[in-house]
Amino acid sequence: MDIDLLWKDGPRLIRDPDVFTLGTDAVLLSHFISEKRPGTLLDLGVGSGIIPLLAAWNDPELTAVGVEIQTHAAELAARNMELNGLSERVKIVTADMREWREPSLSGSFDLVVSNPPYFPAGSGRSALNPRIAIAREELMCTLADVCRAAAYYTRWGGSFCMVHRPERLAEVMHLMSSSGLEPKRLRFVHSRLDAAPSLILIDAKRGASPGLSILPPLKLYDENGGESEEVRKLYHR
Amino acid sequence: MDIDLLWKDGPRLIRDPDVFTLGTDAVLLSHFISEKRPGTLLDLGVGSGIIPLLAAWNDPELTAVGVEIQTHAAELAARNMELNGLSERVKIVTADMREWREPSLSGSFDLVVSNPPYFPAGSGRSALNPRIAIAREELMCTLADVCRAAAYYTRWGGSFCMVHRPERLAEVMHLMSSSGLEPKRLRFVHSRLDAAPSLILIDAKRGASPGLSILPPLKLYDENGGESEEVRKLYHR
Repeated sequence: MDIDLLWKDGPRLIRDPDVFTLGTDAVLLSHFISEKRPGTLLDLGVGSGIIPLLAAWNDPELTAVGVEIQTHAAELAARNMELNGLSERVKIVTADMREWREPSLSGSFDLVVSNPPYFPAGSGRSALNPRIAIAREELMCTLADVCRAAAYYTRWGGSFCMVHRPERLAEVMHLMSSSGLEPKRLRFVHSRLDAAPSLILIDAKRGASPGLSILPPLKLYDENGGESEEVRKLYHR
Repeated sequence: MDIDLLWKDGPRLIRDPDVFTLGTDAVLLSHFISEKRPGTLLDLGVGSGIIPLLAAWNDPELTAVGVEIQTHAAELAARNMELNGLSERVKIVTADMREWREPSLSGSFDLVVSNPPYFPAGSGRSALNPRIAIAREELMCTLADVCRAAAYYTRWGGSFCMVHRPERLAEVMHLMSSSGLEPKRLRFVHSRLDAAPSLILIDAKRGASPGLSILPPLKLYDENGGESEEVRKLYHR
């Protein structure tokens, strides 16, 4: 069993070629929510478990739920929690977020997060591995499905945070607003500051009035091509 | 009568303290639409007339309509067209865009633009001059009113372009999408690239499918505090 170490003395993650590779995106989303101190966290499409794992690792008070439609990924996430001694505080549910509605948890989470599939189904971005394709393409859930589930589970005044691609920003904002989740904080991730952004990080608040704060951009690389200071800090380097 | 010259041999504008000062914003919006070659242009809230004036100045084929609720501003816009020999091609209509619906022009414009009031009514941003306040605050029209009028006048496949403030981006996108105007192109204007943006430039297409292109940011100032190269070019300096 291959183990990835996120940083020295940091949480450990089991490597599995059938689960979507640990990308920068989930780590950037974790960074984006790091100033919040939610008591409860829900991750819609938890994959290998990286987001609740980092959140629970950093905050000993946090309890979290991760929902995952793919059985093998959910099993991996559960093993990752066990490996890091977090099984008590992070529960993994194998379920389809389009149908999974738990009345006892409705409107209860301080923070809901998602690193959802980025590409519309049939967008020609198919991966050869169907399990990876489900993580990348909207085969099992669309952006609208994610926002609907987020609206159901986020408490009044709580937040829904997502990482997505810039070309989906208009849809993201429209679907969030339509679901009663008002975009309040937005950050663009750029490889270089003078180039178009490559990712968006967005924070919407349930029941808030309009008014968006756009943060200074997050730069991934320095002028010399190396990791930027902010990214190095993120990985404790 | 004081005359401003936008640049050497460029169009001339009458200065009037009762009409919203010629700001960078309208010039940036003109720059944002400069690659389009619309046959017909409509400006919702035309003010002193700067946007159709620049568009007609740059394109001898263009015909334009400017709508303005404030009589004295509409009169100034008409005089500005006359001053530059553009009265034949740019018509100024004194009307309330909330009510002005001309069936013969419905769905007819290739390009609709607006540099609308940025601040919600009663946001404490009141100017002492009530005429200026109408240009800055949503006293006579809201963002929703502007999008409704734009949706009525933009032809199928035509564009609606707007300049606005970043904190309104979520509303802008939501209202555009809800009006059948799909955001397709977005550019942020920054004083400095590592700071939060100060303005947004957005281009929506009527009847298009989702998919947004975020352009590289527009930088107003250089590291040394002088105008950036792009801004200098804009003003033909």
